[in-house]
Amino acid sequence: MSELTHFNEQGRAKMVDVSDKNDTVRTARATSSVVVNETIYRQIENGQIKKGDVFAVAQVAGIMAAKNTSQIIPMCHPLALSGVDISFEWNVDESAGHYEVELVAAVKTKGPTGVEMEALTAVSTAALTIYDMCKAAGKEMVIGPTMLLQKTGGKSGDYQRD
Amino acid sequence: MSELTHFNEQGRAKMVDVSDKNDTVRTARATSSVVVNETIYRQIENGQIKKGDVFAVAQVAGIMAAKNTSQIIPMCHPLALSGVDISFEWNVDESAGHYEVELVAAVKTKGPTGVEMEALTAVSTAALTIYDMCKAAGKEMVIGPTMLLQKTGGKSGDYQRD
Amino acid sequence: MSELTHFNEQGRAKMVDVSDKNDTVRTARATSSVVVNETIYRQIENGQIKKGDVFAVAQVAGIMAAKNTSQIIPMCHPLALSGVDISFEWNVDESAGHYEVELVAAVKTKGPTGVEMEALTAVSTAALTIYDMCKAAGKEMVIGPTMLLQKTGGKSGDYQRD
Amino acid sequence: MSELTHFNEQGRAKMVDVSDKNDTVRTARATSSVVVNETIYRQIENGQIKKGDVFAVAQVAGIMAAKNTSQIIPMCHPLALSGVDISFEWNVDESAGHYEVELVAAVKTKGPTGVEMEALTAVSTAALTIYDMCKAAGKEMVIGPTMLLQKTGGKSGDYQRD
Amino acid sequence: MSELTHFNEQGRAKMVDVSDKNDTVRTARATSSVVVNETIYRQIENGQIKKGDVFAVAQVAGIMAAKNTSQIIPMCHPLALSGVDISFEWNVDESAGHYEVELVAAVKTKGPTGVEMEALTAVSTAALTIYDMCKAAGKEMVIGPTMLLQKTGGKSGDYQRD
Amino acid sequence: MSELTHFNEQGRAKMVDVSDKNDTVRTARATSSVVVNETIYRQIENGQIKKGDVFAVAQVAGIMAAKNTSQIIPMCHPLALSGVDISFEWNVDESAGHYEVELVAAVKTKGPTGVEMEALTAVSTAALTIYDMCKAAGKEMVIGPTMLLQKTGGKSGDYQRD
Repeated sequence: MSELTHFNEQGRAKMVDVSDKNDTVRTARATSSVVVNETIYRQIENGQIKKGDVFAVAQVAGIMAAKNTSQIIPMCHPLALSGVDISFEWNVDESAGHYEVELVAAVKTKGPTGVEMEALTAVSTAALTIYDMCKAAGKEMVIGPTMLLQKTGGKSGDYQRD
Repeated sequence: MSELTHFNEQGRAKMVDVSDKNDTVRTARATSSVVVNETIYRQIENGQIKKGDVFAVAQVAGIMAAKNTSQIIPMCHPLALSGVDISFEWNVDESAGHYEVELVAAVKTKGPTGVEMEALTAVSTAALTIYDMCKAAGKEMVIGPTMLLQKTGGKSGDYQRD
Repeated sequence: MSELTHFNEQGRAKMVDVSDKNDTVRTARATSSVVVNETIYRQIENGQIKKGDVFAVAQVAGIMAAKNTSQIIPMCHPLALSGVDISFEWNVDESAGHYEVELVAAVKTKGPTGVEMEALTAVSTAALTIYDMCKAAGKEMVIGPTMLLQKTGGKSGDYQRD
Repeated sequence: MSELTHFNEQGRAKMVDVSDKNDTVRTARATSSVVVNETIYRQIENGQIKKGDVFAVAQVAGIMAAKNTSQIIPMCHPLALSGVDISFEWNVDESAGHYEVELVAAVKTKGPTGVEMEALTAVSTAALTIYDMCKAAGKEMVIGPTMLLQKTGGKSGDYQRD
Repeated sequence: MSELTHFNEQGRAKMVDVSDKNDTVRTARATSSVVVNETIYRQIENGQIKKGDVFAVAQVAGIMAAKNTSQIIPMCHPLALSGVDISFEWNVDESAGHYEVELVAAVKTKGPTGVEMEALTAVSTAALTIYDMCKAAGKEMVIGPTMLLQKTGGKSGDYQRD
Repeated sequence: MSELTHFNEQGRAKMVDVSDKNDTVRTARATSSVVVNETIYRQIENGQIKKGDVFAVAQVAGIMAAKNTSQIIPMCHPLALSGVDISFEWNVDESAGHYEVELVAAVKTKGPTGVEMEALTAVSTAALTIYDMCKAAGKEMVIGPTMLLQKTGGKSGDYQRD
């Protein structure tokens, strides 16, 4: 059974040594979502034509956060990301009054550690940005659940959420 | 009905002018959660004695992210926070195999804009940090839902989640 | 005749004391431009429909840089900006083969120092972002001239470029 | 004809995947300039003896910005720069009342992507720093044109401005 | 007797609420030192003429770190500094082979909390920068002791080191 | 005799080119200390049970600063650290009224340049964080001396303080 890493003999956090890990291609995909009210849904959708693009701003925010992950998450190793992408899709059930944006971030690198945290940080930040830009029209939005969908590469093997 | 702010006449994002808003005391509380497996639960709990304190690291991460919110969220106004606190509580149902950390962040400032984003960024970052430090023992953890619990201060009035 | 400020008695740079200046509303507008080739012009314009919005990314970059100015420009005072906006306009002369984006950034704050540097940093960063996103189609783009258009507020008086 | 990269199928910006690019030595040189008035010219020149060194501060600012480029320019890949240098030269025509600082930044790395943006960001930031330190003696300074002089390394071939 | 602040009821760190503190003028001065070998001493001194100015770079580094203190020190409140200065003085006893740079940072603000940490961070960073630039000529340099010399302003009263 | 590097022909600072250096494993250990009064000593020690863990916060601060070294120290090369750890030990002589925390940071990477600055920045920042969290109970604390204990790897050979 794997133990929590990240702790030294004094029981305090450390950044685990990975200098003996090889540089291999690694990918990760993570997802989050934002449930919004109907007003916000309509405004974002119309916004793609008349008012601007909430998702464009969220995407930039997510990509910049992915690159900055090791400065946001204390024990996360710095990595030079080779690619980041985020996509947005509406999951709407008008009859049930359900309006939800699904976000998926895909991150890739060639390095010694995985990019799960970068993918999770990207979707979380993109979701927070959506919240920020829409909160004037309803503060009851709900972000998440946020989770890892898939990871490939590295010695610990691939991961695929069921 | 409130419109999405944050857009200029060209339909692109802007940081809305708030120079005519008064500096008043503003607070916000936000919550998130991390559902972990039993192994991680036991390791964190034992960790408080033997191996260190995952929550201590998560708390520092959340507080630093709260202070850095306007650099993470593109259209968010910079604010000199006057106080930030994060608390962690286990919500465990052993018979159901449910192990969940509930996080609450409370943020306060005296300034021209609210601190909802700072509170949401704090809990999101603290939750991501828990994920990072425990992921060696299970990548299926689920973060969130993440949401605003309460806000006070400012012209738009108080908000209280039902 | 004004002397260069920013130097101490040892002849080295310092951040000038402004603690006796009053918080007043201050604005600044700065401009820059990017001259591109016809291919890039067509791709950006079509991009607004088919491929995305170069200017949307440039705008986010410019706004985030404006907020980060005091960490980029060493002797610049930190300021909590109250508003930032950037606009983009094509200045095209097809017969002369001239394709130029004109950028204008407008920044506002209520504080003890002016926001000239924030406006100049915003347009410079937005212009650099346009260069970055288009450089695969031509590295000969020219950025600038970059200059201050106007400033208001503060003891040193308003400034208006002729 | 090269197409604008940096966009995904949803037409939004992404950070292009470069994980299949090889690490090779890459260099770039970029230039900018600042036109100042006679007063500023005299103060900077005397400053090298009596008052400090505006260019020393500008150089530090440019080098730090070069290292931070991927956090300033949203779609720019992070790169561990192996060397950065900036030089300053006066181009003065006293009879015409023309006082101009020419800046050249040279950046080098061993990595998967070029360093054009790092060189352009370095000169832009150094020029902005000169503006900041001299603006008390004249806000009419003009920055730029800013452009790439040369790049070497990488699959897309070398570039040399005519 | 004052208790350690910075902890919540769960025994974890928090950023203490200061929203009821008044904005008053506050100053702090801190000192550090770097003991170098004779070679480094001669190179720095000659450097002021022939090779550049180590202290100019150290000063910029210290000033930028002062402005960034609340992002470096986790529980430190963000403050808009109104002034920062650093001075350098040689304390040399050639007969004893003692070559020491004494650094003093002076920081000022009008705000709700003191600037002791900003002054201490400024001198520490300036000293580290001297170490970095000189380490090729001797890694045995010793930094510090680093300490607060004086603080004024705020409810807790002034402090003056004996 | 080694010369100060870091300067170009104009006598101004540059970031030295290291593109011809090989990526090898490099380590560094640095130490600092904080002398506190008896009250602070008792509060920190009791704090490990009742009030929280000053050292846990200091450790996170030190690790994050180590990762951010090239943004704090101007001429320092960016490096992807592979491991960082910090330990704390009390050196107490109650009869002499001497209460001192000794800090040691160990940093490791596989890269083209050494990690001395990262280790020194880590202990300095951890020490500053201790100061910050304890200063309400006594501002006379003294930080340092701060120095390099050991370095391995790289062409310039290993270093071991006597």
